[in-house]
Amino acid sequence: MPNHKLTLEYDGGRFHGFQAQPGLPTVQGELERALRPLADLKSPVYAAGRTDAGVHARGQVISFHAETKPPTERLPAALNSLLPADISVLRAEEVPDGFHARRDARSREYRYFIINRPSRPSMGRGFLLHYPHPLDLERIEEALEVIVGVHDFRSFCREEAGKTCVREVLEAQLERLPHDIIAIRVKANAFAYMMMRMLCSALLEVGRGRWTPKTLEEVLEEGDNSLCPPTLPPCGLVLEKVHY
Amino acid sequence: MPNHKLTLEYDGGRFHGFQAQPGLPTVQGELERALRPLADLKSPVYAAGRTDAGVHARGQVISFHAETKPPTERLPAALNSLLPADISVLRAEEVPDGFHARRDARSREYRYFIINRPSRPSMGRGFLLHYPHPLDLERIEEALEVIVGVHDFRSFCREEAGKTCVREVLEAQLERLPHDIIAIRVKANAFAYMMMRMLCSALLEVGRGRWTPKTLEEVLEEGDNSLCPPTLPPCGLVLEKVHY
Repeated sequence: MPNHKLTLEYDGGRFHGFQAQPGLPTVQGELERALRPLADLKSPVYAAGRTDAGVHARGQVISFHAETKPPTERLPAALNSLLPADISVLRAEEVPDGFHARRDARSREYRYFIINRPSRPSMGRGFLLHYPHPLDLERIEEALEVIVGVHDFRSFCREEAGKTCVREVLEAQLERLPHDIIAIRVKANAFAYMMMRMLCSALLEVGRGRWTPKTLEEVLEEGDNSLCPPTLPPCGLVLEKVHY
Repeated sequence: MPNHKLTLEYDGGRFHGFQAQPGLPTVQGELERALRPLADLKSPVYAAGRTDAGVHARGQVISFHAETKPPTERLPAALNSLLPADISVLRAEEVPDGFHARRDARSREYRYFIINRPSRPSMGRGFLLHYPHPLDLERIEEALEVIVGVHDFRSFCREEAGKTCVREVLEAQLERLPHDIIAIRVKANAFAYMMMRMLCSALLEVGRGRWTPKTLEEVLEEGDNSLCPPTLPPCGLVLEKVHY
């Protein structure tokens, strides 16, 4: 049976996350509903990153085995005519039988977008965290160097029973964008639960001057997530890309 | 009585344009409603550009005379607590008595945002025109040179009785942005009614290869707006900046 790899963009604002939940709007739920008339789906679709409620994606990747009525190259157009406006299929490819969107992903890239000015945002308000306090961006960049490499991120994630929080951060960078917007871009082999939103929260403490880059390093070593400031809201977070 | 200059950002999607209209949501209507408890407004507020229904702004400028309860520097925060989420006041200044947001504006800058890829947008879909056909960007850049300077833009606007369509385009540029987005940025002393949306429509004809830059030049000289392709929708248009 053919194996398919789809790349998706979505505005996660309205969804209770990627993963299907009975009775709640989810990205997976919408996808499987749209696929039904087009494919004889025998198993769930698998996603590279199970984004949480309210988190967006510009490059989510899913895979599934099925015979499809439209040929693979016509799947994006066929699906987009059936999907709601807040999900769009960007690409579809046929892939070798063994390909699995999650297991085969070598790394993921997320961006967290922050608008750093006194006034709250109106344009793009569903995709930005409003942070009104002045930020020292050079200090944030110093702190970003601390997280690069292999670390146990227990201090900056919500631990899941029986799962390790050891991850390898491959790249971590602050981007200065127009209109007082900054983005924190992190590429890692994988992300622990809530890791990006907790790390970015700590980085804002550094930018605001309540923590130093050294504090972040010490908290990372401590391995205690009660030291982490409150988790940032999902609206600023985007799954940008999955690398295979 | 003090004279105030305010800089505004808004998501125009929900509004029937800037200008107040009885019984319809407008930016001016919301502003005057929010100002009522804060200022003894004796006249309407004046805007640098009366944006049409659905058009956005990142740098709209308004002016009004009034005594205000909060001091000028506190007006943005006070107004933002009373305004709906799709309007945000960025700055407030006290200005000389004779200042008028529209009359004194020397030039305006607009951007029209286009996402040029086969799949419709989901993220940012209220701020982008979806244009699925391949575009030759170099040809659009050639055509942009044609419109710079003083021209009678009758072919690329809806004429208003008794008003000239002669305008001076000071800068016209195509910007290549990430994620298959392009922006057409035009700075002019002023814009005739629908001018930006009609010009951009013609520029897309050039990019698609149905017009040449020479066609655009000839239509501009012809002075007949029935030669212009259909006016683009408002969602892609943003009033970026007003220069004084």
